[in-house]
Amino acid sequence: MATRFHKKTKALQRSAGSPIGVFDSGLGGLTVVRELRRLLPSEEILYLGDLAHLPYGTKSTGEIRRRSAECARFLMKKKIKALVIACNSASSVAHKDLARILPVPVLDVITPAVEEALATTRNQRVGVIATYATIESRSYAKALEARSPEAQYFLKPCPLFVPLAEEGWLDGKIAEGAAEKYLAPIRRKQIDTLILGCTHYPLLKSAIAKVMGPKVRLVDSAIPTALRLKTLLQKKGLLSPRPRRAPLKIFVTDYVRNFARIGESFLGEKLKTVKLVKVP
Amino acid sequence: MATRFHKKTKALQRSAGSPIGVFDSGLGGLTVVRELRRLLPSEEILYLGDLAHLPYGTKSTGEIRRRSAECARFLMKKKIKALVIACNSASSVAHKDLARILPVPVLDVITPAVEEALATTRNQRVGVIATYATIESRSYAKALEARSPEAQYFLKPCPLFVPLAEEGWLDGKIAEGAAEKYLAPIRRKQIDTLILGCTHYPLLKSAIAKVMGPKVRLVDSAIPTALRLKTLLQKKGLLSPRPRRAPLKIFVTDYVRNFARIGESFLGEKLKTVKLVKVP
Repeated sequence: MATRFHKKTKALQRSAGSPIGVFDSGLGGLTVVRELRRLLPSEEILYLGDLAHLPYGTKSTGEIRRRSAECARFLMKKKIKALVIACNSASSVAHKDLARILPVPVLDVITPAVEEALATTRNQRVGVIATYATIESRSYAKALEARSPEAQYFLKPCPLFVPLAEEGWLDGKIAEGAAEKYLAPIRRKQIDTLILGCTHYPLLKSAIAKVMGPKVRLVDSAIPTALRLKTLLQKKGLLSPRPRRAPLKIFVTDYVRNFARIGESFLGEKLKTVKLVKVP
Repeated sequence: MATRFHKKTKALQRSAGSPIGVFDSGLGGLTVVRELRRLLPSEEILYLGDLAHLPYGTKSTGEIRRRSAECARFLMKKKIKALVIACNSASSVAHKDLARILPVPVLDVITPAVEEALATTRNQRVGVIATYATIESRSYAKALEARSPEAQYFLKPCPLFVPLAEEGWLDGKIAEGAAEKYLAPIRRKQIDTLILGCTHYPLLKSAIAKVMGPKVRLVDSAIPTALRLKTLLQKKGLLSPRPRRAPLKIFVTDYVRNFARIGESFLGEKLKTVKLVKVP
């Protein structure tokens, strides 16, 4: 894999006008794109949703690495200047590899969320909600332990949040009932910071906030990830000089049910350019 | 495919003591096994859950046919005397093929449910709830139209019901809230019969019944499917002569999260013999 990447990419020229590549197994990563568009409106973004192979969360580590490498390869061919892995499963198993191999900066969504949470917490009690797959991968647990041995963390899988977000049932008694049922045990741990460890969860922010109360700060990884990318591009002199809002191009390896409705609710704007592509 | 089946199976001897084979992409088919065990306690059952490839609902027709053929081949090698396709997606696209090719009776779960519903309805107004994939396949619509041109039917996908069943949130305000939200439009159509067109849904029967009211009869395909199999085995002289309760053997191509808890809630008894197998 390393060799194939190397051969194909070392000769490429990256400039400030090059696009930013983002990939995810699904459409959830569009919540990250939404923040990138807000913070870096002049940056052209290429988003690849590997819908033909979703969800990554239930795949083996090897298979997630392989899919991530293919997604990265697809975007690298389009001469991106930076890559954002907007998928928790891929972030937890493929980030190190891709960061080592690729000649462009590679950001995950876990590290920025964990650093933001640790910078925010005052009582060193942090909660993490995510899918079963992410919780079981222990990627948040490991990232928190590595950065702050004294912090205590509490993990809770919330499997119904993804279908609720995809149904568009974002508030009201069903969403709040589910949030209450999942979050009551974690609220009793007196955490003051809660990481939304799944790209779908920001859509349920208001139901989650209602249950957790005003004293608990919610950390949506999209925001610190976008901030980190901005700082990084600034440092490298790679911020786009484009004076107006740049385009967003979306590539998908398949279409899923309610594709446009779900995508637009995650992105917060209309889906314009969407292209079906093959990523082997 | 036909040839491979033929070569391997034509020489096999099936007797009344042979087992019944059942397959599904997941564990939902165990709601069918539960009824088979209730109605035919002397019959040995071999259940294959193709968990490594679930869900079938989002796969292409060709891929579902291929997976179904592989599952059937696996069970045929174990000398089953009848095959039950306990999966709505596989029933809708692979039943005809398998019934033509295999030298044993092959039952689907759609036909028995549709016939039961048409025998039950008095006002010829039938509702069907199922996953998006099943609704979009139009398999229920076609089966209803073919058997009763005068019946009116109303279809409604209920995507949250599967994760609710798998979380074990079977009643209470969240399940009932979701049922109310999904079923209110179909209740207004004044149906008197509602087909539960997904093997997960029988677990939510009480929440569904509460919303639909006492005048609507719920049709759970497991019951008419088990009845049809019993009649068929009787006719062919293939009912098991075993005097005591026969064993149930479960084969899975992978394990899924909360495997035992979910499986036992569907089956209504402890999972005893579970074996991990490869089905290419």
